[in-house]
Amino acid sequence: MLLELNELMRRRGVGALICIGDSTSCNPELAYLTRARIPRGGVYFKAMDSEPLILVSHLDVNLARQGVVRDVRTFSDMGYDDIVARVGRRRALAELLVKLLKAEKVRGSIALCGYRSALESVNLADTLRRLGFHVLGEQRPTILDIARSTKDEWEVETIRRAGVKTLKVVKLFERLLSELVLRGGVAMYGQRPITVGFLKRQVAVWCAENGLTLNEGLILSVGPKSSDPHHSGSDEDRMVEGQPVILDLFPTDRSGYMYDFTRTYVIGKPSAEVRRMMDVVSHAHAVALDNLGDGISSERPFLSVCRYLGRRGYLTILDLERGVKEAAERGFVHSLGHGVGLTIGEEPYLRYRERSRLRTGMVFTVEPGLYEPDLGGVRIEDVVVLSQKGPEVLVKHPHLTMF
Amino acid sequence: MLLELNELMRRRGVGALICIGDSTSCNPELAYLTRARIPRGGVYFKAMDSEPLILVSHLDVNLARQGVVRDVRTFSDMGYDDIVARVGRRRALAELLVKLLKAEKVRGSIALCGYRSALESVNLADTLRRLGFHVLGEQRPTILDIARSTKDEWEVETIRRAGVKTLKVVKLFERLLSELVLRGGVAMYGQRPITVGFLKRQVAVWCAENGLTLNEGLILSVGPKSSDPHHSGSDEDRMVEGQPVILDLFPTDRSGYMYDFTRTYVIGKPSAEVRRMMDVVSHAHAVALDNLGDGISSERPFLSVCRYLGRRGYLTILDLERGVKEAAERGFVHSLGHGVGLTIGEEPYLRYRERSRLRTGMVFTVEPGLYEPDLGGVRIEDVVVLSQKGPEVLVKHPHLTMF
Repeated sequence: MLLELNELMRRRGVGALICIGDSTSCNPELAYLTRARIPRGGVYFKAMDSEPLILVSHLDVNLARQGVVRDVRTFSDMGYDDIVARVGRRRALAELLVKLLKAEKVRGSIALCGYRSALESVNLADTLRRLGFHVLGEQRPTILDIARSTKDEWEVETIRRAGVKTLKVVKLFERLLSELVLRGGVAMYGQRPITVGFLKRQVAVWCAENGLTLNEGLILSVGPKSSDPHHSGSDEDRMVEGQPVILDLFPTDRSGYMYDFTRTYVIGKPSAEVRRMMDVVSHAHAVALDNLGDGISSERPFLSVCRYLGRRGYLTILDLERGVKEAAERGFVHSLGHGVGLTIGEEPYLRYRERSRLRTGMVFTVEPGLYEPDLGGVRIEDVVVLSQKGPEVLVKHPHLTMF
Repeated sequence: MLLELNELMRRRGVGALICIGDSTSCNPELAYLTRARIPRGGVYFKAMDSEPLILVSHLDVNLARQGVVRDVRTFSDMGYDDIVARVGRRRALAELLVKLLKAEKVRGSIALCGYRSALESVNLADTLRRLGFHVLGEQRPTILDIARSTKDEWEVETIRRAGVKTLKVVKLFERLLSELVLRGGVAMYGQRPITVGFLKRQVAVWCAENGLTLNEGLILSVGPKSSDPHHSGSDEDRMVEGQPVILDLFPTDRSGYMYDFTRTYVIGKPSAEVRRMMDVVSHAHAVALDNLGDGISSERPFLSVCRYLGRRGYLTILDLERGVKEAAERGFVHSLGHGVGLTIGEEPYLRYRERSRLRTGMVFTVEPGLYEPDLGGVRIEDVVVLSQKGPEVLVKHPHLTMF
């Protein structure tokens, strides 16, 4: 949580945390620390035991003030224009930071963060080191990863709001599926076979109507192709009776926070194998929820699901480890979940060989799936918060809906 | 251009270029080097004078193969699972890179790139340095910035296609504006005053229908508020007769490439001051186009526009430099343009104190604007490619449309 940041800095001996970015979009660390949307980005600076400040373009002062950092200054306030005139634009940032570090009398290490090219980050660290500062590097989970991994109430409710909007779109999608009719085993919308491309466009429009953007696309994958969990769906594909239809939505809300939700549908009667996969995945989802709790290893729910699926006769990564190559593309081929917040790839990771522990306040997906190359895939994904009362699905929705 | 990469590596003594990312979305460098959309990202590796390779999750092999890197391998192919089992997930990446560097017998410096947290980038550089490798840092423009700053034909046409879609949305917006009627000086849509929030939602839906996403939002700013060039528009605002309406769209196409386009409208008759601002900005746009060319300083078109605006009696950054504080928020308060590609903040920058030079193949905005706190703003923005025949607006559209 953001409120833990100072304590985390103290524990790691970080005298100053500096976050840099050209924009808050695509820079989850700068967005997290400022809770503002700043088009041109800026420099966030926090000395241990002091309130943070941010430097932004004079054009972005009003937007920056909408965030949580109270001390908003312009680059001009800090004499940046004079620095640029003296050393040029390219070297001005390092000079500016030195000025700040000296003004704030920073002791201890400097942690540079913010998503930007590694080339620039290494250069800036080298420059500061040449000037005598001690600059930290950190492997993941970094100080920021740890702060971001548990969400405060505002974040949980913000993610839930994104979820409520996402579910509105899902319900519109389900209503459309319920209106399809089968002709010769193909799903028809009016007089024409419905295509994945048409449906994707429709889902994108519904997202826009609900204030969501699909910055990372969406997955709408049907039939055997859905057995590749990352196949996003081919526009020309039709929907065939009894085959799986996977809708996986991971939209971004205006707040910058994301949601991640998957259901698997079948038009008409599913084949016996697909029906069994659906039931088993739904049960695996429950097994996962039963294995979540504060202090539990992030690997445990994954292993519990693998063991359950194994008992039901499906391959998992545990079989791959034992040399069963087939388990790379058949059975439960991915991890059980990942953190959700300003990204959909953050702590915690519910996966094999993960040593970290789940903590109250974490928000993450639970997404068991089964994949059979000839048939397709089945996946059920919800976002869960680990609250003090235990795991809670943020926005509830039936696992299985038949049409 | 991507084809120049090897030559750029040679010139800077880069023996190996390594690009890392958790995803290609929000990682323009990984997206650029691979020309693929890889949900879980991966590691791009290019030794000087060798073909590049990429390592991806086994889930992403098919998606990675759709890009330009022919040698697609999985992490498992490289023995990553054994490394993870031996040293843990957190240290495995550095071990893997060392294995690659040794296998490819890399000489010279290593350039690490890819957008990720500076904490991780510095850590990885430190780890490789401890193992005896020479790791480069670079200030901007980095080797990647320079490669990306000139676009090849495929990129120019990809950006143009994004522009054609953007203009479809703009035309729908203009048609809607033409249908508004004024009542008591307020623009009505049917029986109700039209609001910025309604229009923004409508524009988002049109974008979705045209396969565009608004990852960074949009600007639809009206009246005096539009005098802040980054004010994105307040949902509840109404449109008032004679006041400026700025629509600034910067959507992302499925390809990952962006477009950036602005027009300023007035419902009813503009006031004399606004009308004059519109004419002057339109002429400033022409002045800018007249000052573009291969080898010309990126600052020159900016200065030419400032001088023209100064002659017409408007303040510019040149006045701010002379101590006229008012010029921070009145007149031409921003730069003239920026590169457009996988981002809308890249080389070249057409701004004050910019020492770099324009080159054939560069694609950038030309966006003069004038801002008066009591009246609002006027901005006209197009994307221009500097072709061998000179500057060409990628998708033409009238500067001024009156309703």
